[in-house]
Amino acid sequence: MTAPVHDVVAIGNAIVDILAQAEDSFIEEIGVAKGSMQLMFSPEEADALYARMGPGREVSGGSAANTVAGIAALGGRCAFIGQVADDQLGQVFAHDLRATGVDFATEVRAGQPTTARCLIFVTPDGQRTMNTFLGASQFLPEKALDRDLIAGGAILYLEGYLWDPEEPRQAMRAAIEIARNAQRKVAFTLSDVFCISRHGDDFRKLIAEGLVDILFANENELLALAELDDCEDAIAKIAAQVPVLVVTRSEKGAVAISNGERATVPAEPIDKVVDTTGAGDLFAAGFLHGQAQGWSLEKSLKLGAVCAAEIISHYGARPEVDLKALAAKLG
Amino acid sequence: MTAPVHDVVAIGNAIVDILAQAEDSFIEEIGVAKGSMQLMFSPEEADALYARMGPGREVSGGSAANTVAGIAALGGRCAFIGQVADDQLGQVFAHDLRATGVDFATEVRAGQPTTARCLIFVTPDGQRTMNTFLGASQFLPEKALDRDLIAGGAILYLEGYLWDPEEPRQAMRAAIEIARNAQRKVAFTLSDVFCISRHGDDFRKLIAEGLVDILFANENELLALAELDDCEDAIAKIAAQVPVLVVTRSEKGAVAISNGERATVPAEPIDKVVDTTGAGDLFAAGFLHGQAQGWSLEKSLKLGAVCAAEIISHYGARPEVDLKALAAKLG
Repeated sequence: MTAPVHDVVAIGNAIVDILAQAEDSFIEEIGVAKGSMQLMFSPEEADALYARMGPGREVSGGSAANTVAGIAALGGRCAFIGQVADDQLGQVFAHDLRATGVDFATEVRAGQPTTARCLIFVTPDGQRTMNTFLGASQFLPEKALDRDLIAGGAILYLEGYLWDPEEPRQAMRAAIEIARNAQRKVAFTLSDVFCISRHGDDFRKLIAEGLVDILFANENELLALAELDDCEDAIAKIAAQVPVLVVTRSEKGAVAISNGERATVPAEPIDKVVDTTGAGDLFAAGFLHGQAQGWSLEKSLKLGAVCAAEIISHYGARPEVDLKALAAKLG
Repeated sequence: MTAPVHDVVAIGNAIVDILAQAEDSFIEEIGVAKGSMQLMFSPEEADALYARMGPGREVSGGSAANTVAGIAALGGRCAFIGQVADDQLGQVFAHDLRATGVDFATEVRAGQPTTARCLIFVTPDGQRTMNTFLGASQFLPEKALDRDLIAGGAILYLEGYLWDPEEPRQAMRAAIEIARNAQRKVAFTLSDVFCISRHGDDFRKLIAEGLVDILFANENELLALAELDDCEDAIAKIAAQVPVLVVTRSEKGAVAISNGERATVPAEPIDKVVDTTGAGDLFAAGFLHGQAQGWSLEKSLKLGAVCAAEIISHYGARPEVDLKALAAKLG
């Protein structure tokens, strides 16, 4: 095994987020489960919802892309593979990712559909409810994979969200094989509880086959994956199947289990939760960067908590303050 | 004179802002005067600067558009005339303006160039330095003017920035005539000190011809317009030529002079200046809305100061909190 070129190579949806404030009553009106991600299947559906949305702000997003942007901001070496279209939002996405220092060379896709957009409604409690039009992102083909890039990453990081569209799902399976053959680790985030209801069997199979080395889940996702009602039971069940399990628990902090060792961290105190978009993504960034530095489980969790606290203190899922400086405070 | 349909009808550049943090050294490197607006004349120039920019966030902008967005957020009835292209940034601009309640019906312009972008570098002191690619915005034709719309607005509001490109300059001259013939008021903002070095003679002529009823300027712009070194001298000189003069003085507050009456207001205290983009635009929004309500000069200034304080407390020049609620606190 040669020395890795990148700490993390991620494959994910290439999305620009459009964030606007909304009342709880609006979330009920549009019939979406608050806090979840719902797919929009046509540009018309996306346009119709956009027309009902308040004034927005656009910030590059995409779960795994947010994570590698966070790791790059922390000083890690990252690459991203994801599909944008040849349009202005695609340019914005590519610019922002490269500007954070992430290598991103997936060829743009000509013609329709457009680059993926996620309409994110942020309620007064800071919770985000997401409506995604996957656009070009759902057509990431297996041939877009740079085999050397994947083989040269210490960790291949994959998002559950990308399991929805067929082409990227095939690409991710191929990527796992490439990473495995190169003796690299595979990290996976379960993304969303509804994503598990759609693809839970696939996810459970991946885990059972020993293809996931580091698994990220929030409490609800873990329960859905484990098909259990009790969080501790679920932790015990899933931790037995993966070398590293990280469970985020919102304001209750997070827990990581690895080889029988268990570490916990409280949530970082913050003044006000402005927008929870990207909290899990940045938690993963901090944790993975800590692990890449050879830090303990506990210190890695702590960095995850610090990064998550930064991201929820403002709109959008890309860091606005110097994460390196925050990490340096951890010693 | 029939009752006005809109409180304010504005003509301005239709721009999407791309905001990123930058160090002071970067502003020096790119050779732009800090705090000013510089035009970029080609897409290539814009792309080259964008490539050097950090990760951004996109928020609809445009000086006069920000002002009517602010007035609409305060509950005023506004319309906007400005040129976007048939592209994603044009859709973003139109969406955001309409979503604040501003009537915006200017037909999109097919083909190149793209919708205007403004690359805004925000330094650690919160100061913004702007680099604008006017794109489609510079091709607003006189025929895009809706004569009835302009004749039905109590105030026609124009931005000095739009004096740069030739077609909109002609359109604005025509709009002034329409407004005058309908016995409406004309409000004008000087926009930028370099804008005055380019078009000061035109601006002075407009004022001398009695075509400006309400003039907005910051201190530097006022000095440049008056061709004087002393602020009080400049106020005296220009106040004699316009029915209402409003001078914003950053942290020193603002002053308004009308028919020999002089009112002043201190700057609103805020915790931290995050980004000054739109401070003048939102000051104008508050002042004009106050005037439309029949408020005193002083109370109108106060609302201007409150709106400006809101806008500089976050990134972007569109309000993020309920301005109506802020206005209500003024009683």
